[in-house]
Amino acid sequence: MNRELKLAVIGAGYWGPNLVRNISEAPGADIVAVADLDAGRLESMRKRFPAVRMTQDHRTILADPDVDAVCIATPISTHRRLAEEAFAAGKHVFVEKPLAGTVADAVAIDEAARRAERTLMVGHTFVYNPAVTAVRELLVRGELGTVQYIDSQRVNLGLHQFDFNVLWDLGPHDVSITLYWLDEEPRWVQCIGGSYIQGGIEDVVFLTMGFPSGAIAHAHLSWLAPSKNRIMTVIGSRKMAVYDDVQAVEKVKVYDQGVDRLDSDELRRSYRAGDISSPRVPITEALQVEIRHFLARIRDGAEPYSGGTAGVRVVRVLDAASRSLKQGGVRVDYAAPAAARA
Amino acid sequence: MNRELKLAVIGAGYWGPNLVRNISEAPGADIVAVADLDAGRLESMRKRFPAVRMTQDHRTILADPDVDAVCIATPISTHRRLAEEAFAAGKHVFVEKPLAGTVADAVAIDEAARRAERTLMVGHTFVYNPAVTAVRELLVRGELGTVQYIDSQRVNLGLHQFDFNVLWDLGPHDVSITLYWLDEEPRWVQCIGGSYIQGGIEDVVFLTMGFPSGAIAHAHLSWLAPSKNRIMTVIGSRKMAVYDDVQAVEKVKVYDQGVDRLDSDELRRSYRAGDISSPRVPITEALQVEIRHFLARIRDGAEPYSGGTAGVRVVRVLDAASRSLKQGGVRVDYAAPAAARA
Amino acid sequence: MNRELKLAVIGAGYWGPNLVRNISEAPGADIVAVADLDAGRLESMRKRFPAVRMTQDHRTILADPDVDAVCIATPISTHRRLAEEAFAAGKHVFVEKPLAGTVADAVAIDEAARRAERTLMVGHTFVYNPAVTAVRELLVRGELGTVQYIDSQRVNLGLHQFDFNVLWDLGPHDVSITLYWLDEEPRWVQCIGGSYIQGGIEDVVFLTMGFPSGAIAHAHLSWLAPSKNRIMTVIGSRKMAVYDDVQAVEKVKVYDQGVDRLDSDELRRSYRAGDISSPRVPITEALQVEIRHFLARIRDGAEPYSGGTAGVRVVRVLDAASRSLKQGGVRVDYAAPAAARA
Amino acid sequence: MNRELKLAVIGAGYWGPNLVRNISEAPGADIVAVADLDAGRLESMRKRFPAVRMTQDHRTILADPDVDAVCIATPISTHRRLAEEAFAAGKHVFVEKPLAGTVADAVAIDEAARRAERTLMVGHTFVYNPAVTAVRELLVRGELGTVQYIDSQRVNLGLHQFDFNVLWDLGPHDVSITLYWLDEEPRWVQCIGGSYIQGGIEDVVFLTMGFPSGAIAHAHLSWLAPSKNRIMTVIGSRKMAVYDDVQAVEKVKVYDQGVDRLDSDELRRSYRAGDISSPRVPITEALQVEIRHFLARIRDGAEPYSGGTAGVRVVRVLDAASRSLKQGGVRVDYAAPAAARA
Repeated sequence: MNRELKLAVIGAGYWGPNLVRNISEAPGADIVAVADLDAGRLESMRKRFPAVRMTQDHRTILADPDVDAVCIATPISTHRRLAEEAFAAGKHVFVEKPLAGTVADAVAIDEAARRAERTLMVGHTFVYNPAVTAVRELLVRGELGTVQYIDSQRVNLGLHQFDFNVLWDLGPHDVSITLYWLDEEPRWVQCIGGSYIQGGIEDVVFLTMGFPSGAIAHAHLSWLAPSKNRIMTVIGSRKMAVYDDVQAVEKVKVYDQGVDRLDSDELRRSYRAGDISSPRVPITEALQVEIRHFLARIRDGAEPYSGGTAGVRVVRVLDAASRSLKQGGVRVDYAAPAAARA
Repeated sequence: MNRELKLAVIGAGYWGPNLVRNISEAPGADIVAVADLDAGRLESMRKRFPAVRMTQDHRTILADPDVDAVCIATPISTHRRLAEEAFAAGKHVFVEKPLAGTVADAVAIDEAARRAERTLMVGHTFVYNPAVTAVRELLVRGELGTVQYIDSQRVNLGLHQFDFNVLWDLGPHDVSITLYWLDEEPRWVQCIGGSYIQGGIEDVVFLTMGFPSGAIAHAHLSWLAPSKNRIMTVIGSRKMAVYDDVQAVEKVKVYDQGVDRLDSDELRRSYRAGDISSPRVPITEALQVEIRHFLARIRDGAEPYSGGTAGVRVVRVLDAASRSLKQGGVRVDYAAPAAARA
Repeated sequence: MNRELKLAVIGAGYWGPNLVRNISEAPGADIVAVADLDAGRLESMRKRFPAVRMTQDHRTILADPDVDAVCIATPISTHRRLAEEAFAAGKHVFVEKPLAGTVADAVAIDEAARRAERTLMVGHTFVYNPAVTAVRELLVRGELGTVQYIDSQRVNLGLHQFDFNVLWDLGPHDVSITLYWLDEEPRWVQCIGGSYIQGGIEDVVFLTMGFPSGAIAHAHLSWLAPSKNRIMTVIGSRKMAVYDDVQAVEKVKVYDQGVDRLDSDELRRSYRAGDISSPRVPITEALQVEIRHFLARIRDGAEPYSGGTAGVRVVRVLDAASRSLKQGGVRVDYAAPAAARA
Repeated sequence: MNRELKLAVIGAGYWGPNLVRNISEAPGADIVAVADLDAGRLESMRKRFPAVRMTQDHRTILADPDVDAVCIATPISTHRRLAEEAFAAGKHVFVEKPLAGTVADAVAIDEAARRAERTLMVGHTFVYNPAVTAVRELLVRGELGTVQYIDSQRVNLGLHQFDFNVLWDLGPHDVSITLYWLDEEPRWVQCIGGSYIQGGIEDVVFLTMGFPSGAIAHAHLSWLAPSKNRIMTVIGSRKMAVYDDVQAVEKVKVYDQGVDRLDSDELRRSYRAGDISSPRVPITEALQVEIRHFLARIRDGAEPYSGGTAGVRVVRVLDAASRSLKQGGVRVDYAAPAAARA
């Protein structure tokens, strides 16, 4: 059980090299192969990682009994087929986010993992970001009190996608982080947006989720913005926290302030403005934490934080949001039947 | 016509002293009287402005033929009655924002002004803020191109109101600025929110307006936030602008960047990141500009930027937003019949 | 002893109105008279403070037995004569900073106070700034450890003085704060600078003080800068603190970081980067705290924080710095005989 | 002449891998060998760059007729010997900053280059930083007017060196940038500092240079600071510029403000506060620009911006500053005879 785990990566596009590098740096793991249909991409990968086997046929990887697990970093529409093949071949599977483009596909992948009794993990990298974890710890310890609402700004200039809108591109981050922090599934989802550059592909959306606890989570997601913002503000009944991923230091700030009581005669005195503190957050790369989590779950068989359950939930939210978006922002019940293939 | 205009203020609460001070500093105007039901407030006003006549009965002001105009800074529900009395007495009228709490009241005030052939101006102070004006000039000159969307953050800790929610408290600012910038009325309005401190009074709302041009304006309004933010981002087809009212300098920044064209093979090259510039904005107090504008419109009889037409439109948007809020965020047609008295 | 203290202000220029307003708001004090040679200034004061007696002859104030104390806010060269007259008349005296333009004058004022057994206080307002006090408390509690060095940036565009250079204009702030924090007198002083706008009047200086403890305090003082900076960084052996007076919130930040030990093999591990915290600092106006401190010291007879001793020390440092400046930055012994009248 | 140039790197420590990577990415160059005395370092280099020959004996590199140029990234005390050997072997030489630890050594290297008629370039990387270049262009075009003074903050927590103080570690950056911007050599140098962590090795210094034009350049260099600052402010007679290397965007800001004239009666009106603009600066890595500059100068034989002349000047300033430091900050004549070996 303490032998090296052998991993392969399917998909050598934008994100693939990051996976290869992080697997090669993770203790107890070995990156043995990379597959991609594009010979040019394989060639440039070969230059960076001369010791790794390159192939245009992912089936040679799945057929290799030495490979323990595969990481799928291909276009979303191919996730289901590749994951099902990999589970059928007895591999553990890591799938880049989002798990799938439809609820049906996401559920199918999750079920395939359970049938095969293999580990399924979705690449919701932010859940392994030390700053996100630090906020979760504040919440678990009750330091912030009950969450009242979360506001998120996740905007920047580009990078436009051609096959998915900004909801499916940036939305998985906000949804996965929020579900991780709140530890509950939403009751309803609402989404409005606009398509300004490519007809029919929203480059700006405002996503809102309502939760059984009463909490609301709202996110502004955009490919059209003058600067890169990655700010999530958590308003708790006791304290407030800001997680600003763009900052080099002070990524998390805790504000000991709030509304203590309301007194109609002396309005101003009812507000409490207190100390501000910024806990030190380790600067470990989130992807490295994530890969190590995947390896540990392969070894112990437990479900990852971002396992099939979490992966399906995120897709369910995005699916509900897509329907709200198409209907001009009506409130969509999270538990309602999912949309057919988008 | 070049004689001093004599003004009086009705309402000596939070905002009243600012009006009195600014009138007293405006060339061509004289502040002659202040009315308030509360003797204590009058007393503290008397200390600061010993030369101004104080009265508990506003009718003595309306009956004074020397008074040219009155400024109404009383609770919203009293605006209509006081404005109608003032117009009946032949006075010009300045009403604090919002013009009224219902569309019917707002329309009635506007009609009273037209019948009386007197100037009506609403205290949408931000429309007279030099930074807001600077952005409007960028838009009028076409420097930003067509507006695609506007995102606004208007949040801070407190000050909770007891009779109106955050939509009616902070919303008039965003709505009046947006209508001033876009020069069009919305087609639809949508609003969701939450009440966390006082049951039934929303302290957080997300307001969205859709415009005939295709532009969307979205605003996050909150009394629950760790720090004071007053940031409006305008995404234009040519350039982007950020108006940050909290900054002491660089209140307006123009970003010469955007998406020039989309080329599926070389995604990153299609973005244009250019110079950033910050035009110098005069540091004149907006309220002083506003008072002078009121005086000039009294003299020339033209409609103020924030005259009856603008004032009614803002109330119409807030009214539509209130109905959306009550119905869980459904899209409400701006032109639909207004709600009965809230 | 609990009767109201009656104060008068001599000098109605830039700073005088702030003194009058703050005295009028301080409990236990009454502002009764203002003197200035300039009738125009007196007139504009009369408008703002109609209840206060105005006079062009300060001697009528000194002759008034009802006046307990006078605040001198006149040009520096007049401080000595006016203070000596006031003490001779039995008044307590508050003198704007710096106490005098020469060490001899400063010492003479201090001695006059002691002979008259009256309270002398110098207007080193920053010593009463809640953020400055908060840093002093961190130092007194030993939270920062031993101070290694202090770096200060005190720059902005203007306001040029005509009779004194930037060292005598902005320097009193840094010197008074530093002596208050370190609780020791410097051993040596060094100063270099340049005159770019008015020949012979430095608009930029770099001032350095060396202390017996080994601490160094360095300040960049300038009237020529693109933005206003007021940042003092205190490097302690245990923690570091930054006091940024321009910030609206987080004026004081404490960094739990430093160099724990140096290990030649693993350089990076020897640094400790820890939590950052920002204690809540009351937003009381420093001048109000200062006036109340003056009143309390008049009542109890104790020496103010910025009494004659502190006032003389600040002038002694500025005098030594002036001599260093004239000699191209040579190190000047703090204890050496002072310069003759500048 | 258009064949690939073959380069080798001597020294595989902290900076060596950056050189190897950048040479391998530069068009027209090939990295062929790396030498280091330490076998462990060579081994870790071999993993990253499997195609590059590794050797413990740099003489095998110098003896290889295929090698056109060597980059020396070894301890400063070895620069002279290695550079002289390399020139004797007919190689072009790139030496990491500072060129040498004494003026005598720096001059000897420069002379060896001239005798051998080979290119000598010093690794003053910041001179090739696009933001530094952008400021230089502002100066050359006269947009800032005459430089009055430059203030620099170059501080951070660590990384302490053991054989050189912070003056020799961080100082080369400020000196090389300043000389590049001002295009003149200083007339005098002054330096004071303190040693807080390691006896006798200053971890904080304040360095000042006076120039024939009247300009002063002042730098605060420190290994003891709560946060990393890299800010240089240039005060010109027409405009001011700030170069903040820590910013991701807006690294250069130009302030159209200054003192137009001084008018004793209306002080405030004499200041001009105008637009602020931030020219777009390419995000090219400075080291890549530098390597390409080296290659181009090898090909055309011209002296690099940071050639021997510049490299000797920087060492001359640091040497003068060291002497000032030892004498408690006396002003040292730049043209005076240099110190013997430090």
